[in-house]
Amino acid sequence: MKVKQILFVSRPKGLPTMENFTTTETTLPEIAAGEVLLKPVYFSVDPYMRGRMNDEKSYIPPFQTGQPMEGAGVAEVVESKDPDYKAGDLVMPGSTRPFLPWATGVIFSGKDLRKLDTSIPASYYLGILGITGLTAYFGLMDIGKPKPGETVVVSGAAGAVGLVVGQLAKLQGCRVVGIAGGPEKVKMLTDTFNFDVAIDYKNNHKLATSIASACPNGVDIYFDNVGGEISDAVIKHLNFFARVPLCGQIALYNSTEEPVGPRIQPYLLTRSILMQGFTMVNYTARLGEGIQYIAPLVKAGKLKSQETVVEGFDHLPTALLGLFSGKNNGKMVVKV
Amino acid sequence: MKVKQILFVSRPKGLPTMENFTTTETTLPEIAAGEVLLKPVYFSVDPYMRGRMNDEKSYIPPFQTGQPMEGAGVAEVVESKDPDYKAGDLVMPGSTRPFLPWATGVIFSGKDLRKLDTSIPASYYLGILGITGLTAYFGLMDIGKPKPGETVVVSGAAGAVGLVVGQLAKLQGCRVVGIAGGPEKVKMLTDTFNFDVAIDYKNNHKLATSIASACPNGVDIYFDNVGGEISDAVIKHLNFFARVPLCGQIALYNSTEEPVGPRIQPYLLTRSILMQGFTMVNYTARLGEGIQYIAPLVKAGKLKSQETVVEGFDHLPTALLGLFSGKNNGKMVVKV
Repeated sequence: MKVKQILFVSRPKGLPTMENFTTTETTLPEIAAGEVLLKPVYFSVDPYMRGRMNDEKSYIPPFQTGQPMEGAGVAEVVESKDPDYKAGDLVMPGSTRPFLPWATGVIFSGKDLRKLDTSIPASYYLGILGITGLTAYFGLMDIGKPKPGETVVVSGAAGAVGLVVGQLAKLQGCRVVGIAGGPEKVKMLTDTFNFDVAIDYKNNHKLATSIASACPNGVDIYFDNVGGEISDAVIKHLNFFARVPLCGQIALYNSTEEPVGPRIQPYLLTRSILMQGFTMVNYTARLGEGIQYIAPLVKAGKLKSQETVVEGFDHLPTALLGLFSGKNNGKMVVKV
Repeated sequence: MKVKQILFVSRPKGLPTMENFTTTETTLPEIAAGEVLLKPVYFSVDPYMRGRMNDEKSYIPPFQTGQPMEGAGVAEVVESKDPDYKAGDLVMPGSTRPFLPWATGVIFSGKDLRKLDTSIPASYYLGILGITGLTAYFGLMDIGKPKPGETVVVSGAAGAVGLVVGQLAKLQGCRVVGIAGGPEKVKMLTDTFNFDVAIDYKNNHKLATSIASACPNGVDIYFDNVGGEISDAVIKHLNFFARVPLCGQIALYNSTEEPVGPRIQPYLLTRSILMQGFTMVNYTARLGEGIQYIAPLVKAGKLKSQETVVEGFDHLPTALLGLFSGKNNGKMVVKV
């Protein structure tokens, strides 16, 4: 069977461009015993993928040039020689082979797959019930440790992780302040997602003042998805014993030089602040706990999902690039 | 009774100078019932005191201009109207009034004092069995959580806290690398205190290379007493899941402008690193635990004390200023 693939062909310096990708065709062999032929239906595009484009030590190995891009995804079984699967089943890769290649068809071993409950929308497994929802849960609950009445600031608040963080913090009885880019996102945070205050960082020359007035009692938890100058402004308002789960630094991912900024250690020192970098990979052994917490809230409508769906396999690179200019509200997924 | 006092008269911009202090005389009244007249015998000078010279929010209130300087100290009872104390007793302020003013005599309420065991040298209560030893203990053990075989880097290694951190880490079975200024200090670290490697940061244009070769398996714990460029160099070598107890930033205390440097969040994020600012004040409820751990090691000779003793009350300001040019090996104390 002939399938289309999108290959990673060159490592970007700075912002990735369409030239870092190319589309090819390849032919899949017949499947063998124990194998399953899959047709991807949703792909996830995520900011962390920028890190995999660099050839450097991180928590996931870098992408290899000349190989297909890969990421989280949901697929439908087309043909199966594994008795556990049949055509039409909805599946995701499991922890033994966690990513789908960017291809319109792929062969997996049945043992590397897990079957999905179709009473939940398929794309949720890439967002609120997937990496981004679990990242929000573990970062906020395990590192942030919110207490009722505390003030939680979330940067990248209209992104996939940020929206879940804000909602979870509200459920914990916190005052929640979101920082996002543009009037539409800010309106969504307060109107749809019940944030107490939302700050538009774009064209905002008084960001520090906006943060100060939104947080009259200072900031107890800063859930940081973006880094850079937004974080500089928040860090000055952190309270004694504040916690800073470091989840993303999207403002810096495309830097071509070593980013420079105000030193933060004096703040962390004099106010006994905790800063902890993390990824969901650290919580592999506790995923069940996270899903058991989130799934009932989603089913009860207490935790809402927000998605930006881009249609068409060929638009995968465009969707990924769109993350870096904030084209997404909530989770960005590509529907094949 | 007439006593000399050293007053704090102006807030320094940048490095403090002798002009920020003045010496005056004052007359103490007769002591009342429950009171004790003290003659200080040792004063502690510590880098954190620079922070108290600024008029800003921190974990201890700022010094007040026109008032005596104050700090940790050991005193002898001269006269007592509290039945729990008699002339000749050696005492320290307790937690209810923790500091001695910089004066040659002072009146305390007996209930604000605690008596010292004189089988231990008096100055040890200001160092290895006092704030600096306990700071080392809690920062290393509670935040750093050393495991045998791990690599621990200590900056300000020849200072009062650094020397205890290095010795405690060796007792935990770690590889210990100290960073200090000058050939004499470096020699002391390896020859007297059993550090595996000591790096002289002064006139060292290859600090990053020195650290890399001293830490072939990377750095698991960076106990940071100094901040600035030394820390920039160490942070690049931190391993996944490294811990950074932030204890001091002496390199930055005298900055007149907001210090700027390479952003550290990308390292913390991609390697899941913990950074935690702390002071011993956070561990007030657990001081007994620390003393019970340290005291037997000191008595058994497994934990050595190192002191720089400056003689003479009038030299208190000089001794304090000397900390910022690294004039001390180990704990700097002033003998009255």
